[in-house]
Amino acid sequence: MADKPAVIRDTDNEARELARTLLAQARYASIGVIDPETGFPSVSRILVITDKATPVILASRLSAHTQGILNDPRCSLLVGEPAGKGDPLVHPRMTVQCLAQQVERDGEEHASLRERFLERHPKSKLYIDFPDFSFFRLVPQKAALNGGFGKAFWLMPDDLAG
Amino acid sequence: MADKPAVIRDTDNEARELARTLLAQARYASIGVIDPETGFPSVSRILVITDKATPVILASRLSAHTQGILNDPRCSLLVGEPAGKGDPLVHPRMTVQCLAQQVERDGEEHASLRERFLERHPKSKLYIDFPDFSFFRLVPQKAALNGGFGKAFWLMPDDLAG
Repeated sequence: MADKPAVIRDTDNEARELARTLLAQARYASIGVIDPETGFPSVSRILVITDKATPVILASRLSAHTQGILNDPRCSLLVGEPAGKGDPLVHPRMTVQCLAQQVERDGEEHASLRERFLERHPKSKLYIDFPDFSFFRLVPQKAALNGGFGKAFWLMPDDLAG
Repeated sequence: MADKPAVIRDTDNEARELARTLLAQARYASIGVIDPETGFPSVSRILVITDKATPVILASRLSAHTQGILNDPRCSLLVGEPAGKGDPLVHPRMTVQCLAQQVERDGEEHASLRERFLERHPKSKLYIDFPDFSFFRLVPQKAALNGGFGKAFWLMPDDLAG
């Protein structure tokens, strides 16, 4: 990682706690992938759960973000959605750069994620077992936390795992 | 553009109307850029206005997204934020792949954008004239509209301009 710019604060326990809370509470997120066709970064909305401090998404092979991470596992999540009205830049949010790992469809890991995903997102039962849908673990590489104007931190995977 | 997959519907006037509304009503958005340091797509939150069917953002040179678009103008916006509770995947949203163009600080274009930005985002008066802040036009190249589960469209710049 490059030298930390002066505008980035030293990571403290309050920042770590906020980062973990944002990740744990996220029901959905914006995911950025590289579009295999154009090379542009492409952003879409996905449902998310967190398993062992790792975001997990359910994604259809037919969707643009899945085509992206199957071609290049580098992706980012933006978590922390503004609640209601007010200045959206005051609301804390975090960008997590991740490497995507597809979860094998058979086996205990899939079964356990399936159960937890259904618990958090009951409507996903309509498509969770469709053959084109898979779980992907998005393994954090580094994160940028923005706790509001001027409150910026960089975090590493250990800071998120707690 | 590659051949349109079977899951993409033919663009009709209803889709164009929804796309223009999402763009015009957006107060903030998720922006995806390429991180110059890691090559990862990186997603953050920004305030937005729309000028002549083109999204315009106000961005600090110190921010990660500005570093990204100064290095590589390819970026994406996700507009269409879920309102309140409910299934976020039912809420319409649109991914717009754009090329970023910095607006010169002196001149009529900057003055006009400044006025409109302040009108829409009054709190930005606290930093809009800081020397590290600039406007960028995000010129649409193509867009993917998702009007809800199974309602996907591809749109071209003309579809957005109306």
